[in-house]
Amino acid sequence: MTAQNPIQSLVASLARLPGIGEKTATRLALFLVNCPEDHARELARSIINAREKICFCSQCFNYTEQELCSICANPGRDGHVVCVVETPGDLMSIERTASFKGRYHVLHGVISPLDGIGPDQLRIRELVDRIREQQIHEVIIATNPTMNGNATAMYIADRLKHSGATVYRIAQGVPSGSDIGYADQVTLRCALDGRREMK
Amino acid sequence: MTAQNPIQSLVASLARLPGIGEKTATRLALFLVNCPEDHARELARSIINAREKICFCSQCFNYTEQELCSICANPGRDGHVVCVVETPGDLMSIERTASFKGRYHVLHGVISPLDGIGPDQLRIRELVDRIREQQIHEVIIATNPTMNGNATAMYIADRLKHSGATVYRIAQGVPSGSDIGYADQVTLRCALDGRREMK
Repeated sequence: MTAQNPIQSLVASLARLPGIGEKTATRLALFLVNCPEDHARELARSIINAREKICFCSQCFNYTEQELCSICANPGRDGHVVCVVETPGDLMSIERTASFKGRYHVLHGVISPLDGIGPDQLRIRELVDRIREQQIHEVIIATNPTMNGNATAMYIADRLKHSGATVYRIAQGVPSGSDIGYADQVTLRCALDGRREMK
Repeated sequence: MTAQNPIQSLVASLARLPGIGEKTATRLALFLVNCPEDHARELARSIINAREKICFCSQCFNYTEQELCSICANPGRDGHVVCVVETPGDLMSIERTASFKGRYHVLHGVISPLDGIGPDQLRIRELVDRIREQQIHEVIIATNPTMNGNATAMYIADRLKHSGATVYRIAQGVPSGSDIGYADQVTLRCALDGRREMK
């Protein structure tokens, strides 16, 4: 099948999306051919629109369509606290908790020597400059609790040593609602090390 | 959040797809914003393209971009055998088995009195005319083994009684690789009724 018909092309395009196999892609393609025409056109338009309008916030490197993202532009957010995340997706996850009122800094990755990604490929220099210039008191590093995420956190903490800001790492431990019997050893060790006094 | 930014609009459009919840939609949207630009554009173009070019095959009502679909136009397929299916998706599933060499007829639904769908809303009249006109010897009814699918199969068999074609229904029984202990009663009864002699 070299000459593809429009449905086969659509299936092929959809199957490139992460987590979408050929069966799901086929189901989605048949839905898109069959659904109200404006649903399908709106999806196509949204994709193009997102690609054309989205750029990086000049302060925190979150996705935005303006010079500053809506969080950096919001005077109601605490400008003295900055949460450092790997990706805009992580930022969105934290925002969904509605429990953080400061601002963010998006690294767009982590230090990963095996992939050839060092500090200079990330937004770490911009972070260090920002912490110095903006009198930030508190930095919370929320990179993933993986080997690379932890190493990146330690690197950043080191770079911010003399910045005047207090640097925190998010807590590692057993996730809420989980079963201790299923927790892995590293997680349990972190949960014990990070124990908090019950008052 | 009434004024949506481009990413939120894209998430909303993606979340309308069947089986895609808000979390998956967010993951896909962030991928589409981050992936190579031509991947994203190609997906958008494929959606528009499929909507603009796809129409129904004038003979079997499968999706096609020509007068006849590639199966009806293929002289290598046996024109004396017609397999009747509910949807183009079912047709694609059967094609994937590569074990059917005849042609198809797509009903685009099943008789469903509760939803107000009678024989006239489906392509049944066209099927009956086609069987008569094209000297078809064999009709295999592959509607789903559900109440409505079975009722539709019986209705079609009745309409084709005097057509000269032999009408078959696909076999119902225990699916390959399954466990008889988990099969439901109706399936097991069908499997017993449809038993085949081992020679």
